[in-house]
Amino acid sequence: MGLEAVKMVMDTPEFELVAALDRKHGGETLGDIGFSGSQAPIYTDAAECFSEHQADVLIDLTTPEFGYVHTKTALEHGIRPVVGTTGFTEDQLLELKELSEEKELGCIIAPNFAIGAVLMMKFSQMAAKYFSDVEIIELHHDKKLDAPSGTAVKTAQMINEIREPKKQGHPDEQETMPGARGAEMNGMHIHSVRLPGLIAHQQVLFGADGETLTIRHDSYNRASFMSGVKVCVETVMKTKTLVYGLENILD
Amino acid sequence: MGLEAVKMVMDTPEFELVAALDRKHGGETLGDIGFSGSQAPIYTDAAECFSEHQADVLIDLTTPEFGYVHTKTALEHGIRPVVGTTGFTEDQLLELKELSEEKELGCIIAPNFAIGAVLMMKFSQMAAKYFSDVEIIELHHDKKLDAPSGTAVKTAQMINEIREPKKQGHPDEQETMPGARGAEMNGMHIHSVRLPGLIAHQQVLFGADGETLTIRHDSYNRASFMSGVKVCVETVMKTKTLVYGLENILD
Amino acid sequence: MGLEAVKMVMDTPEFELVAALDRKHGGETLGDIGFSGSQAPIYTDAAECFSEHQADVLIDLTTPEFGYVHTKTALEHGIRPVVGTTGFTEDQLLELKELSEEKELGCIIAPNFAIGAVLMMKFSQMAAKYFSDVEIIELHHDKKLDAPSGTAVKTAQMINEIREPKKQGHPDEQETMPGARGAEMNGMHIHSVRLPGLIAHQQVLFGADGETLTIRHDSYNRASFMSGVKVCVETVMKTKTLVYGLENILD
Amino acid sequence: MGLEAVKMVMDTPEFELVAALDRKHGGETLGDIGFSGSQAPIYTDAAECFSEHQADVLIDLTTPEFGYVHTKTALEHGIRPVVGTTGFTEDQLLELKELSEEKELGCIIAPNFAIGAVLMMKFSQMAAKYFSDVEIIELHHDKKLDAPSGTAVKTAQMINEIREPKKQGHPDEQETMPGARGAEMNGMHIHSVRLPGLIAHQQVLFGADGETLTIRHDSYNRASFMSGVKVCVETVMKTKTLVYGLENILD
Repeated sequence: MGLEAVKMVMDTPEFELVAALDRKHGGETLGDIGFSGSQAPIYTDAAECFSEHQADVLIDLTTPEFGYVHTKTALEHGIRPVVGTTGFTEDQLLELKELSEEKELGCIIAPNFAIGAVLMMKFSQMAAKYFSDVEIIELHHDKKLDAPSGTAVKTAQMINEIREPKKQGHPDEQETMPGARGAEMNGMHIHSVRLPGLIAHQQVLFGADGETLTIRHDSYNRASFMSGVKVCVETVMKTKTLVYGLENILD
Repeated sequence: MGLEAVKMVMDTPEFELVAALDRKHGGETLGDIGFSGSQAPIYTDAAECFSEHQADVLIDLTTPEFGYVHTKTALEHGIRPVVGTTGFTEDQLLELKELSEEKELGCIIAPNFAIGAVLMMKFSQMAAKYFSDVEIIELHHDKKLDAPSGTAVKTAQMINEIREPKKQGHPDEQETMPGARGAEMNGMHIHSVRLPGLIAHQQVLFGADGETLTIRHDSYNRASFMSGVKVCVETVMKTKTLVYGLENILD
Repeated sequence: MGLEAVKMVMDTPEFELVAALDRKHGGETLGDIGFSGSQAPIYTDAAECFSEHQADVLIDLTTPEFGYVHTKTALEHGIRPVVGTTGFTEDQLLELKELSEEKELGCIIAPNFAIGAVLMMKFSQMAAKYFSDVEIIELHHDKKLDAPSGTAVKTAQMINEIREPKKQGHPDEQETMPGARGAEMNGMHIHSVRLPGLIAHQQVLFGADGETLTIRHDSYNRASFMSGVKVCVETVMKTKTLVYGLENILD
Repeated sequence: MGLEAVKMVMDTPEFELVAALDRKHGGETLGDIGFSGSQAPIYTDAAECFSEHQADVLIDLTTPEFGYVHTKTALEHGIRPVVGTTGFTEDQLLELKELSEEKELGCIIAPNFAIGAVLMMKFSQMAAKYFSDVEIIELHHDKKLDAPSGTAVKTAQMINEIREPKKQGHPDEQETMPGARGAEMNGMHIHSVRLPGLIAHQQVLFGADGETLTIRHDSYNRASFMSGVKVCVETVMKTKTLVYGLENILD
C-alpha cells in the first residue's frame, strides 16, 4: 500500500512528495528504487525524517505498532498524520487526540479508506431512520476465512445505532434447512456468499410497503483506497483535532 | 387463477373457449358472470361438460383432489389436460401416464407455470455442468413462513443432478455469527431474504476464476403464470404422452 | 390516493381522522362509504370543513388547481397543509410560503412521497461530491410514454448541483450504433429501459478507480407513498415555514 | 495469454505439456524462462515442433495470421488445434474444415473462451423463444472506445435468430432527451455504460406480464478464459470436424 500511496502523491499536482520512510532502502532516493523523476530521500528513522523535512502531512499505511509511534512523532514535529490502521487501543487514541489538540494539528485515523464502502455504511445508517427492515448480503472470494465480513458487522452496528429495534421476518417463520435465514444481529439478518471469481462486494437492502432501497458497493482492487487517502490529506489541513473513521469526514 | 385462465383464453386469437367448470355457477354462461362477449356455458359436472363439448384441451388450475379426477375424466373423453397442481402421488402420475399413452393424447402436469422461473432453473442446471461453485439467494416478502423457498430447493436439486459434488467455500472457513453462510445442501449454500415490499425473487450465482454468472427471476404477480399455460396448451396438442414439469417442455 | 391516505390515517394510532373532503360524497360519513368504524363527516367545501373542524393537519393529494386553493384556505384557518402535487407555479409557492410564515404554521409540498426514491436522489447527490463519474439507469413498464423518467432527470439535476463538471467516458469513444451511450446531460449519461413486467425502478451507478457504488430504488406499488405522507404529517407540526420537497425533510 | 495457457496446462493433472512455440525463446526450455519444473523445449518453427513431438492438441492464442498457419500445419501433422482468434476469413474456415474432416481430426476455433460469457449468450438465445421483449445493458471501464461492445452485438444477433420480430416499447414513446432509449437493433434496445472501476459486465433483461428474467455475466480478469480452453482441449479429442464458437460445444 505504501508504494501505491507514493504513486498517488506523485500523480496529484497539488501534492508534493518530500521524503519517504522505509526499513530497507534508507539512504537511497525514490528514484533509485524505481520511481523515476523523484529525488525524494528515503529514511529509516521517523524522527530524523521529520526533523529534516518540515512536511504538512504524513501518510502512514503500516501496522498499529509502527503507526502509533509514527503518528505521535509526527505530531511532535508539527506534521499532520493520515493513518490507515485498525488496531489502535482506546488509550492510544485518547492520548493522540490530546496531543493533536494541544499542537492544534489535524490527525485522521481511518480503518477503511475506500470512499464507496464508507458511503455505503453512512447511507445505510441514514436510511435506517426511515426503514426498520433491512438485510445485508456480503459477497467475497472463497479464500476468505471469516463470515460475516468485518464491513458487514460494522454496517449492522452503525444501522443499529439508529434503527428502531425490530425482530424482522414473520413471527412464525421456520427454517426448514438450518441457516437459511442467515446470521441474526438485533433482529437484522446478514448473509455471506463465498464464490471463486468474486472480489469484495456488499449490498444492503431496505424494504417497506411497496418499495425497496438497495445500496451496493463493489470493490475490485486496492486502487480504491487512494481516493480516500487523498480526501483525508486535504481534510487534515483544515482541522485541529483527531478524527477517527472516514465516515466522520465525508458529508 | 381460473378467472385469469378464462381471460387468457379469450384474449388469445388462436384459442376458443367452449365451456367452463365451476362449482357455484352451473347453468349460467361466462357472459352472465362478467365475461362480456362469451356465451360459453358453465358446468358443475366434468363428465357432463366433456360429453357435450368435444374440446381439444382442458385447463385445470384446481386442487390435487379435483385435478386428478378432472384429468382422468378428460383423457377418457378424448380431451388433453393441462394441469397446474403439485400434489399428485407417484401412483396417480403413473396411472395417468398409462392412460395418456393408451389414448394417444398429450397430458401436461406442471407445478410452476411461470416460464421465467422454469428457465432460471433449467439454465442453472445447464450452467452447473461448467461451474461447480454456486450459491442461491431467494428473496420474498416477510409474510412468507418457510425458508428456503420451494423454488430454491427445487433449483438446488436440479443443479445437484448435474454438478460435480463439492464442499464450497474455504475448507477452514468460520462463522463468527451462526447462520451467516446460509443453509447447506450438498455443499451448496442457500440464503433466504425476507423484507416487506419484496414479492418473489431468486438469483443463482455461479463463480469461477475471474468471472461470475448470475441468473435471476423476479415475479411481480400471477399474470406471469398465463404465458406458461399458453405454451402448454400449444405443446399438449403435439405430444402423445404425459409430461411432468414445464422444464421438460421448454427447449 | 386519497382513499389510501384515509386508510393510513385510520391505521396510525397517533393520528385521528376528524373530517374528509370529497366532491361526490358531501354530507355522508366515511363509515357510509365503506370505512367501517369511522364517523368522520365528508365535506365538499374546504372552507366549511376547516371552519367546523380545527384540525392540526390537512393531507391533500388532489390536482394543482384544487391543491392551491385547499392549501391557502387551510393556512388561513390555522391548519398545516401536507400536499402532494407537482404543478405549483413559482408565484404560488412564494405566496404560500409568505402566508405560512405569517401564520407561523408549517406547510409541506412534495412532488414525490416515496421515501426510498427521495433517499436514492439524496444519497446520489451526496455521493456525487466524491465520485465525478455517474450513470443513471431507469427501468419502467413498456406503457410509459416518456424517456427518461422525471425521477431520472430530477436525480441528474440534483447530482449536477454538486458534481464537478465532467465529460464522462473516453474522449474518443464512438457509438457504432447511435444511442448506445444513452442520453447525455452535462456529461452524465442516462439510460431508459422499457419492458413488460417491470414496474418503476432506478439505479444510480458511481465509478472510481477500483470500485463502484450503486444506489437502487424499486417501486412496486403506491403503498410506498403513505410512509412519506406520515413523515410529513409528523414534521409539519414542528416547523413554521413552507418546505418544498421531501428531500429537505429527511436527514 | 500464452503464458496463462502454459500455466493452466501445467496445473491440470490430466494434461501434459510437451513443447511450446515462441518467437523469442527458441532453443530454451520452459524451465529456463521461469516455469520451474518443466523441461519442455521451446521452438520458433511450428513444422519442426510438430514433427518432433506427436502431441494430441495444439493450443494457439496468437494472431489470425500466425493462427491460420499454425492451425493448418498442426492438422497436417496429425495434431488437433484449439484456437482463440477472431479474424479468420470464411475461405480460411472452409479450407480448415475440409482439412480437419479429411484428416478425421477435431479442430475448435473460438473468438471467446470465457464460459460464463458464452453461456450468457446461449441462455439469452434460448430465453428469446419465450420472451419477445428484451433489452441488453453492457457495462465497461471508461477506457473502452466502442459502444456497444462486440459481445452485446453478438448477443443481439443470436437473440435475433430466434426471437419473433417486434418493435419494443410503447408505439408512441418519446425521447425527451435523444439517446435515452439506447441503440436499436431489430426492435431490441442496447445500452452501454462506461465508468472507471468497472471491468467487463453485461446483463440481458427479458420481460413479460408479471415477471422479468435477467442473465448477467461479470468478467473480472483473463483467468476466466482458461476454463474455456480446458473444455475445448477435452472436446477436441472427441470430434472429427471443425467447430466454430464455444457456444456450439457447451450443452
